[in-house]
Amino acid sequence: MPPPVSPLALDLPDLRPLAGVRLGAAAAGIRYQGRTDLVLAELAPGTTAAGVFTRSKCPGAPVDWCRTALKGGRAGALVVNAGNANVFTGRAGAEAARATAEAAAALVGCKPGEVMLASTGVIGEVLPHARLTATLPGLHAALRADGWADAARGIMTTDTFPKAAVRTARIGDTPVTLQGFAKGSGMIAPDLATMLCFVFTDAKLPAALLEDLLRKGVDGSFNCTTVDSDTSTSDTVLLFATGQAKHKRVPAKGGPVLREFRAALSDLLLDLALAVVRDGEGAQKLVRIDVAGAASKKSARRVALSIANSPLVKTAIAGEDANWGRIVMAVGKAGEPADRDRLSVAMGGVWMAREGAVVAGYDEGPVVAHMKGREVHIEVDLGLGRGQATVWTCDLTHGYIDINGSYRS
Amino acid sequence: MPPPVSPLALDLPDLRPLAGVRLGAAAAGIRYQGRTDLVLAELAPGTTAAGVFTRSKCPGAPVDWCRTALKGGRAGALVVNAGNANVFTGRAGAEAARATAEAAAALVGCKPGEVMLASTGVIGEVLPHARLTATLPGLHAALRADGWADAARGIMTTDTFPKAAVRTARIGDTPVTLQGFAKGSGMIAPDLATMLCFVFTDAKLPAALLEDLLRKGVDGSFNCTTVDSDTSTSDTVLLFATGQAKHKRVPAKGGPVLREFRAALSDLLLDLALAVVRDGEGAQKLVRIDVAGAASKKSARRVALSIANSPLVKTAIAGEDANWGRIVMAVGKAGEPADRDRLSVAMGGVWMAREGAVVAGYDEGPVVAHMKGREVHIEVDLGLGRGQATVWTCDLTHGYIDINGSYRS
Repeated sequence: MPPPVSPLALDLPDLRPLAGVRLGAAAAGIRYQGRTDLVLAELAPGTTAAGVFTRSKCPGAPVDWCRTALKGGRAGALVVNAGNANVFTGRAGAEAARATAEAAAALVGCKPGEVMLASTGVIGEVLPHARLTATLPGLHAALRADGWADAARGIMTTDTFPKAAVRTARIGDTPVTLQGFAKGSGMIAPDLATMLCFVFTDAKLPAALLEDLLRKGVDGSFNCTTVDSDTSTSDTVLLFATGQAKHKRVPAKGGPVLREFRAALSDLLLDLALAVVRDGEGAQKLVRIDVAGAASKKSARRVALSIANSPLVKTAIAGEDANWGRIVMAVGKAGEPADRDRLSVAMGGVWMAREGAVVAGYDEGPVVAHMKGREVHIEVDLGLGRGQATVWTCDLTHGYIDINGSYRS
Repeated sequence: MPPPVSPLALDLPDLRPLAGVRLGAAAAGIRYQGRTDLVLAELAPGTTAAGVFTRSKCPGAPVDWCRTALKGGRAGALVVNAGNANVFTGRAGAEAARATAEAAAALVGCKPGEVMLASTGVIGEVLPHARLTATLPGLHAALRADGWADAARGIMTTDTFPKAAVRTARIGDTPVTLQGFAKGSGMIAPDLATMLCFVFTDAKLPAALLEDLLRKGVDGSFNCTTVDSDTSTSDTVLLFATGQAKHKRVPAKGGPVLREFRAALSDLLLDLALAVVRDGEGAQKLVRIDVAGAASKKSARRVALSIANSPLVKTAIAGEDANWGRIVMAVGKAGEPADRDRLSVAMGGVWMAREGAVVAGYDEGPVVAHMKGREVHIEVDLGLGRGQATVWTCDLTHGYIDINGSYRS
C-alpha cells in the first residue's frame, strides 16, 4: 500500500505551454507497474542549458553524462526515468546512459551530447535501457506542449504528490515564463527518493550566464533544505532556456536587465525545494530555521543545518515538544563560533531563552500552541556578528522509519 | 511505563572493592521518584584525576567546573546527579555547582576544587542543589567499598541497564585494577540521556600522565561510537588513580612499564562505550563498521562516521535490508577522498560490491541471514591508501522516535 499523501502537500499550479518545449510521459516498466516512469522533453533548436549536481564522490552514470554533455552548453532533449538510479553500475551504467542518449537524439534530431539524462530509483542494478529505448519512439510521437503535469508525475518515486512551480518575469519590456517540476521526498534518499529538478524558460540566455544564475538560485533554495542529512548520488537540477521569447539581447554578464528574472528564478527554485521538504519522508511539519548574529553567513548556515539535521530536534518537533534545550545542544555541536552566554532561542516568535538562560517568567503555552500547527518556526540569535541564514526541514516521525526501514520490495 | 530493556543488554560484571574508593547512591528526588539519583564517591588522599569532556560550545556548568578543578590534578570526591543536567542555567548553574562541591568537600575533608561534578538530565532548568546538599550527609555516612553496582544504577536516565566494566593489569610485577561505570543511551541525547563515564584505578600515576592515557583511550573507544550524531552538552569521562597499589614508581612519561595498563584501560573504555551503544535509544542491533583503504586514518574515521550516522543506513539495518546502495551513498557524501570505481562493500563478511559495481553472481541470501542477527558487520574498502578505522553504532528504529518524540513528562 502506498504511504498516504503528505499532510503538507500542495496542489499543482496552473501549468501552461512554454514556447520551445514539448513533453510527455510513458510507462516503460522499469520497476513500477501500472504507472508512467519515463519522461521525455524535446527542446527547440538553440536551447541553452546549465546544471548543478550532487557533490557525492559516488555520482550516478547520468550525472557523469550530464557534466560532460553540458560543456557544450546546448540541449535538444531531456530523458528522465524513475525506478532505477543507474548508480554504481560500472561500465554497464555508462553504456546504458550512452544508448539512451543516442536513441533520444535520433528521435529529436540533435547530437547525443545534447541529450540530458537523469535517473532516480534503486542503486546498484544495471538500468534495463532496452526498455527505455523501446518506449521512446511512441513517447516521442505523443509529445505535447501541455504535457507538464504528466511529466511532473512521471518522475515520482516515493513522492506522495507531484511538484511544479511557475513564475513570470520581464526582460526589458518582454514577459518571459519560468516553469519547472521536481521530485524528491527527502533531498537525499538514494534508494527510490533522489532529488531531481528541471526548470525551463523561454528566455534567450547564453549557457555560461544560465549556469551562474542557476548556481546562485540553488544556493538559496535547494542548498538551504534538508530532510535527513543524507546526500543523494543523483541530485540534479537542470535549467533550460529555449530562447523563443523576443526580448532584447541580454549582455553576457547579465546585469540589471535580469533583475526580475533572477528574482523569479530564485523564487521558483525555492518553491520547488520547499515542495520537496513538504514531501519529506514521513513529514508532518514544515520547519523554518532562522539563524542570526553568527560570525559569518557561512557559519550561520552551518549552525542552521546542525539544528535542521539533529534527530533530537526533529523528533521533538514531531512530538510537539517545545524542547529548546535540544536546539541549544545542536548549536553547541555545530563546531562554529558560539558563546553559550550570548545565545537566544525563539519558537513561534516567542523568545524562550535569552543570553544563556531561560527567560524570566517564560510561559510555554503559546509555544506549545504554535508547535501543534503544520509549520514550525525556530529562531536563534548567536549574538556574535551579522551572519544570517535560513534553512528549511521537516520533522522526523515514525513514517520515516516505516518508509526506509522496510525491506525493498 | 519505562521502555523495555535493550535486547542488546549485558549483565553487570563482578565488581569488587578498589583500594581508595568508597561510594554509594541515594534518592535526592531531583526529578525521579522512587529511585536513586545522586551518587557520591570518596577518594583516598593523593588520588590523581584526569578528564575528557564534550566539545560542545554550550557545555553544562559541571563541565566548566571540572575543567577548572582538574588543573590541580587531584580529586577527593565525585558527585553525580541524574534528572537535571545543569546546562544553560547561567549564573545560577555555576552557583549550584559551587554549592554542591563545597558541601561534598566539607564531608570528605578536601578542598572544593578537588570535588569533581557531573549532572545529567533535562536542560535549562536550574539544578535544585539544596536537595543535593541535604542528601549528601546521609549518603556520605553510608558510603561502602562495595557500592559499585548502586553507583552504576544511580546515574542512569533513559538507560535501560546499568553499565560497568573491570580489568586488571600489572605494573612491573604488581597487579592493579581498573574499574568503571558509565551511563548513556545514545552518546548524545542532551535531554535525559547524556553520556557519562567514571573509571577508577588503584595505580599510582601522575595527573599529566593520566590525562595522556585517558585521551588516547577515549579516542579509540567513545570517539569511535555514535548513536544519532547529536553531541551532548555534558559528555564527561573522568579517570581517577587512588595510588593505593604498591607498584614501583612509574616514570613521568609512562613508557613500557605501562604497556599492560594502557591496553587494559583501552579495553575497559571500549567495553563501556559499546555498552552505551547497546543501550542506544531504540537499538535493536549493534553495528560495527570497518573502513580500510582510505587516504588516511582520519579520513577512514570520517567515512565510517558518515555511514554510522546516516539515517538511511540505520533504518535499512533496522529493516534487515541488505541495502548496500545506501552504504555507497554514505561514502559518497562524506566529503573524503573516494573513487566510485575502486570502492568495495561487504556485509557479514560477504563482498557485495567490488570496484564500482555489484559482484558478478552476488547471492543476497547469506547477507540477509547475517542481518537478522543482533550484531551487524559492515566493511568498506576505498582502495586508495592505508588508512583504517572502526566505528560502532546501532540501528534507527521506531523506539528512537517513541523515546525522543514524546512530550517531556
